[in-house]
Amino acid sequence: MVLRIGHRPQRDPRLTTHLALASRALGAERLWVHPGDPELEERLRSVAREWGGRFAVEAVTDWRRAIRNWNGLVVHLTMYGEPFERALASLPPDVPILLVVGGAKVPADLYRLADRNVAVGSQPHSEVAAAALALDRLTTPPDAREFSGARRRIVPQAAGKRVRVRPLGSP
Amino acid sequence: MVLRIGHRPQRDPRLTTHLALASRALGAERLWVHPGDPELEERLRSVAREWGGRFAVEAVTDWRRAIRNWNGLVVHLTMYGEPFERALASLPPDVPILLVVGGAKVPADLYRLADRNVAVGSQPHSEVAAAALALDRLTTPPDAREFSGARRRIVPQAAGKRVRVRPLGSP
Repeated sequence: MVLRIGHRPQRDPRLTTHLALASRALGAERLWVHPGDPELEERLRSVAREWGGRFAVEAVTDWRRAIRNWNGLVVHLTMYGEPFERALASLPPDVPILLVVGGAKVPADLYRLADRNVAVGSQPHSEVAAAALALDRLTTPPDAREFSGARRRIVPQAAGKRVRVRPLGSP
Repeated sequence: MVLRIGHRPQRDPRLTTHLALASRALGAERLWVHPGDPELEERLRSVAREWGGRFAVEAVTDWRRAIRNWNGLVVHLTMYGEPFERALASLPPDVPILLVVGGAKVPADLYRLADRNVAVGSQPHSEVAAAALALDRLTTPPDAREFSGARRRIVPQAAGKRVRVRPLGSP
């Protein structure tokens, strides 16, 4: 599960879309967005209609409460935190992780609300890239079957594109 | 080295900035951008002034020629390609890699110009996330010393922010 706070629908539409696509492709079940963004939710619903799976974007109105109520560990991605490889490897297994991704300016109390503050390199970074690497370490890569109900499936190719399309209305 | 083709300075400024920041943080030496984007180049110069290192964004006028003249292997990241883990692990070591990242619509001849077409998951993806994961597999993580000449250095913290700032004019 990924929580994106400080989303700016006017400024960040494509960036948060990328965060959502990467989260979905890398095995997150859900992206919570604060503030909500109905267009983004619809964009990802349409991805799920075509490409399958159950990933969804949902609005979160009170992100502090969402963090406090999280039944597991809260990991905040920030360039100021602990080096991520060791930090993520030290997390107990089988505990649900909420990855929190901020924008450029993150409220100071987030650092205390999170169980861990973790840096994917202590350098200015892309939150999309940082979330991708954290998910890569925390999840097992989803295989095609996990995107159930897909209308379109890619057949991997050394060159060119091959997509199997299920006709509308077929099971 | 990363080559980003089909950049749209009006539509993609933040996305390609993220690609540049991720490339820098993950050990690429350079990002070539087609078409060029002087504002993006300046933005990354200012990152290097503050945070060190030699990473730079450079304009490429003829991307096909840049690919043809590349003295090494050209790896195109595309959701239609071969599964990336095995493909990247099979590349010969010590050969310079040019990672090519397209936008939504990529010219068809790119698939033939590239030595390998590689998919970070056969799902719609973020090119920022895909490039980050490919770089993660291809490079060793840069440590702080490699960002030489930095004016600001983060001191990793379990909570909060700590930055060491070198006064201007000091060595």
